[in-house]
Amino acid sequence: MTPHTLQALNTISAGDFIGALGDIYEHSPWIAEAVAAQRPFPTLAALHEAMIAVVRAAPHEKQLALVNAHPDLAGKAARAGALTAASTNEQMSAGLDRLSEAEFARFHRLNDAYKAKFGFPFIVCVRRHSKDSILRSFEERLTHSADEELSTALTEIFRIAALRLDQKVVADDRLKVSGRLSTHVLDTHLGKPGIGVAVELWELPADGEGRLIARGATNADGRTDAPLIGGRPVPIGVYELRFAVGDYFKARGLALADPPFLDIVPIRFSVAEPEGHYHVPLVCTPWSYSTYRGS
Amino acid sequence: MTPHTLQALNTISAGDFIGALGDIYEHSPWIAEAVAAQRPFPTLAALHEAMIAVVRAAPHEKQLALVNAHPDLAGKAARAGALTAASTNEQMSAGLDRLSEAEFARFHRLNDAYKAKFGFPFIVCVRRHSKDSILRSFEERLTHSADEELSTALTEIFRIAALRLDQKVVADDRLKVSGRLSTHVLDTHLGKPGIGVAVELWELPADGEGRLIARGATNADGRTDAPLIGGRPVPIGVYELRFAVGDYFKARGLALADPPFLDIVPIRFSVAEPEGHYHVPLVCTPWSYSTYRGS
Amino acid sequence: MTPHTLQALNTISAGDFIGALGDIYEHSPWIAEAVAAQRPFPTLAALHEAMIAVVRAAPHEKQLALVNAHPDLAGKAARAGALTAASTNEQMSAGLDRLSEAEFARFHRLNDAYKAKFGFPFIVCVRRHSKDSILRSFEERLTHSADEELSTALTEIFRIAALRLDQKVVADDRLKVSGRLSTHVLDTHLGKPGIGVAVELWELPADGEGRLIARGATNADGRTDAPLIGGRPVPIGVYELRFAVGDYFKARGLALADPPFLDIVPIRFSVAEPEGHYHVPLVCTPWSYSTYRGS
Amino acid sequence: MTPHTLQALNTISAGDFIGALGDIYEHSPWIAEAVAAQRPFPTLAALHEAMIAVVRAAPHEKQLALVNAHPDLAGKAARAGALTAASTNEQMSAGLDRLSEAEFARFHRLNDAYKAKFGFPFIVCVRRHSKDSILRSFEERLTHSADEELSTALTEIFRIAALRLDQKVVADDRLKVSGRLSTHVLDTHLGKPGIGVAVELWELPADGEGRLIARGATNADGRTDAPLIGGRPVPIGVYELRFAVGDYFKARGLALADPPFLDIVPIRFSVAEPEGHYHVPLVCTPWSYSTYRGS
Repeated sequence: MTPHTLQALNTISAGDFIGALGDIYEHSPWIAEAVAAQRPFPTLAALHEAMIAVVRAAPHEKQLALVNAHPDLAGKAARAGALTAASTNEQMSAGLDRLSEAEFARFHRLNDAYKAKFGFPFIVCVRRHSKDSILRSFEERLTHSADEELSTALTEIFRIAALRLDQKVVADDRLKVSGRLSTHVLDTHLGKPGIGVAVELWELPADGEGRLIARGATNADGRTDAPLIGGRPVPIGVYELRFAVGDYFKARGLALADPPFLDIVPIRFSVAEPEGHYHVPLVCTPWSYSTYRGS
Repeated sequence: MTPHTLQALNTISAGDFIGALGDIYEHSPWIAEAVAAQRPFPTLAALHEAMIAVVRAAPHEKQLALVNAHPDLAGKAARAGALTAASTNEQMSAGLDRLSEAEFARFHRLNDAYKAKFGFPFIVCVRRHSKDSILRSFEERLTHSADEELSTALTEIFRIAALRLDQKVVADDRLKVSGRLSTHVLDTHLGKPGIGVAVELWELPADGEGRLIARGATNADGRTDAPLIGGRPVPIGVYELRFAVGDYFKARGLALADPPFLDIVPIRFSVAEPEGHYHVPLVCTPWSYSTYRGS
Repeated sequence: MTPHTLQALNTISAGDFIGALGDIYEHSPWIAEAVAAQRPFPTLAALHEAMIAVVRAAPHEKQLALVNAHPDLAGKAARAGALTAASTNEQMSAGLDRLSEAEFARFHRLNDAYKAKFGFPFIVCVRRHSKDSILRSFEERLTHSADEELSTALTEIFRIAALRLDQKVVADDRLKVSGRLSTHVLDTHLGKPGIGVAVELWELPADGEGRLIARGATNADGRTDAPLIGGRPVPIGVYELRFAVGDYFKARGLALADPPFLDIVPIRFSVAEPEGHYHVPLVCTPWSYSTYRGS
Repeated sequence: MTPHTLQALNTISAGDFIGALGDIYEHSPWIAEAVAAQRPFPTLAALHEAMIAVVRAAPHEKQLALVNAHPDLAGKAARAGALTAASTNEQMSAGLDRLSEAEFARFHRLNDAYKAKFGFPFIVCVRRHSKDSILRSFEERLTHSADEELSTALTEIFRIAALRLDQKVVADDRLKVSGRLSTHVLDTHLGKPGIGVAVELWELPADGEGRLIARGATNADGRTDAPLIGGRPVPIGVYELRFAVGDYFKARGLALADPPFLDIVPIRFSVAEPEGHYHVPLVCTPWSYSTYRGS
């Protein structure tokens, strides 16, 4: 995806505009087409809202067609390379490319049940999810009515579109699609930030092994140079921060117990709002620590 | 082991006394024999000290013989049923009966190196240890001089004797051989003890899976009815307390995030003093917690 | 008041029984008289309940007479020495003997308004209160109906009676009339209880100066040898614990900032339940601290 | 003081330069004069260092003369209006204009003793101090040798000069003369910043009453809009932050104890480094709180 500036999108021909944004909605260039005449858009948010309005105003069959234009999640298509490039990329992010045979079968079963009940594929904005939360969502949404589900599917499609727009278009404003996961180490034995503390961020699936998704060390202010997750949604799921405070205090020259009372400190928490800011600090000494959802 | 009262031990015949305490020191009834004439002992501690004094005053060869009377740790004897009953029991407690092939080989190698260097078996009071800490200890002690190691071996033998005495003899005093691991949950969202919080205590070996060693639920005072470990040494090692605070807060009727920010809270810490009191409380809300080594 | 054993009270003559407990209810020996025939009482609680039942079963005028038998709070009587010994003692405990001229006038005004509205004196169990909470209670109760106030007055009289009974009678059970205020210092810089920390407990009136009501130093377990308040109700009011942690850490030989970041740590809190247990620990380092209502 | 840009100071005539910076050092324009020829200065720090170098290179008598050019602290001059405008302003900042008779006499006595011993006035950069810390400093410095004191006096003069330069000259760089005192309220009952919490900052002199020096309320991020102290040194001294958490939690609609367990939470701490950043957060629920020196 080559990025476009909003300014350019406002001035190019309608054809070029549709060419540029035709794939914001999966296989559905008619949505870009419908808003081309409304240009210029003062902000990216205005463009996004206009496209949403087109979908909401469309007749039921057209909405259904939009939903049906999306690939089966984790279905045969995912393995056959028939997805759009954007879809492939998105489905990988939740770990859907790492399904075990059993998980693959489970997704397949849920997908079949969903299609049998609703007549259209299960759509979810996978970049906001982990494998586990997709599964939970799948099971919960199977209990909905068809109307509820069409509405939920459109909401998810708008989220996907927002992420694609935000990535493809350079504008003065950004869409609210990204969350943040950050940390901060305070050494209250010393009364200063903890510097050089190794930190790992693990994703913990409900069963199966954890997966290391970021690592770093705290800088002079006790923070990692960049957020552990930033510039994208923080997938709904269970995480564990692991702080190597034993090594840190040893490096400070403290005489610790052997083995030290605290060595690796794990902080396990869940993310429920992918666009939220999860600041999870560690305030610690060799004998104590505390944490909280900060800001 | 039938328990004896100190009072009875002070008054029975020397022969019966030796019969009762002859196995406090492995295959070495001469130590009990040597103190029989010093009776009566006012306290169990006095009896223990008297036996230690006999060993310390013994000639070098007799001390070596005492050390050599002990079985090889994790050696062939452990699998052939040739240990004294007390030894078998003690060796199981550190998980030495759960060695993998690789671990068994490693212990064997270390044991051979140790015997080759010092001419006597490696002795450690296993009830104060986990598999990992025995291994670390093994490697460290291999670097000692022969004199240092004889001294260390005797110290360990005295610890073993203290545990056996404390278990076998009923007296007004107890030897300081037991530690304690306890917890306490304070719910600072409510301002009261956390009642009915499920707690698990896991032992975490350096590699390999954790092992659940105790579980319970907090009572009306936020504590488990009994210490998670008590009445025995707390083995040197790494532990994790796991508190099911998500379920607890849900049961209190709070509207939590979905999934809740905190669900299972793990607190990982190490024990370095088997006879110490490790009080590890959890002070928590649905959004924060703290812990410390308490008292 | 000489204490009596419950056993003795159960067996002495009715006359002696009335002589012993005739003043549990102010100038109203008829209540003791009415329960004398119900003896023996298995517990102190049973005796207390029986006396309460007598009052509740009495006709309206008799209940009013009981209420009217009580002295005006902070009224002329308080200065003329006309109170029963028990009353004098109780009124002093809330600081009613330390009223300023303005406070005295305010109490007098409230008292007059109360008597004008209800026709009987304002009764409160002063040992459960501070000057400020009596004043707040006075103002709130003035808004009640006459029926509500008679009921409230009796509740307060039962509380007074319970305190007098609990003090006067020795039994296997105690009435639930006492609360507790305790503390605990944990030094998480060291990982041990804070030993020898000077602690003061101040009562803070809404206006005017604080009053030191207890002082102590923490022992080897980080606690004061006795609760700061115990064996009696903890008066409703505002308190401040002051911990001399600067001196403590200096005595431990730590190199602190000059002046130290933390010197005297004040913890201010209110007591709302005089019979509750207020455990207010301090978990601290030279650079941090936390506190909570513990248990 | 009209501010000058560094750029302008680098290009104006030597005479104008001396006119502009002649009073950076009290009644000592010769220092500005000596650096005029070294222009241009790339940074404000370079200019400051150059002036310091001139003083350090000056002969002993000239250094003494510089010291002697400063007014007596709290002396007669302070009351007679004979100070330079800059000096008057600086002496007011530590509360030297609010001395009681007794304090005035004490300062006077110390000043006399100091001048008698060293032959020059006591110089301290008052904007870095409170009344109490000046007094402590006075007493400690009286024990120094004359050489030490000349050196200390020059250090203080350089600090005064840095503050004056930083205020008078606009440059791309700033001298490191300012500290910061900030706070942050986290409501861990809710898992969000505490919004609208009233905060007061008090200065607490060793004896005598506290003085309110700043007040504010926390914003949507739980912070005050501006630091409580910023853009200037944080005077060495004892402070108390007071957070009205009782009102805050009441406003959130929580059912609290009556009176609430926590109402006004005082956090008392000392500042030892006027150029440091003192971030003192409050992490609280209605039943608990913690604080620490953050960053």
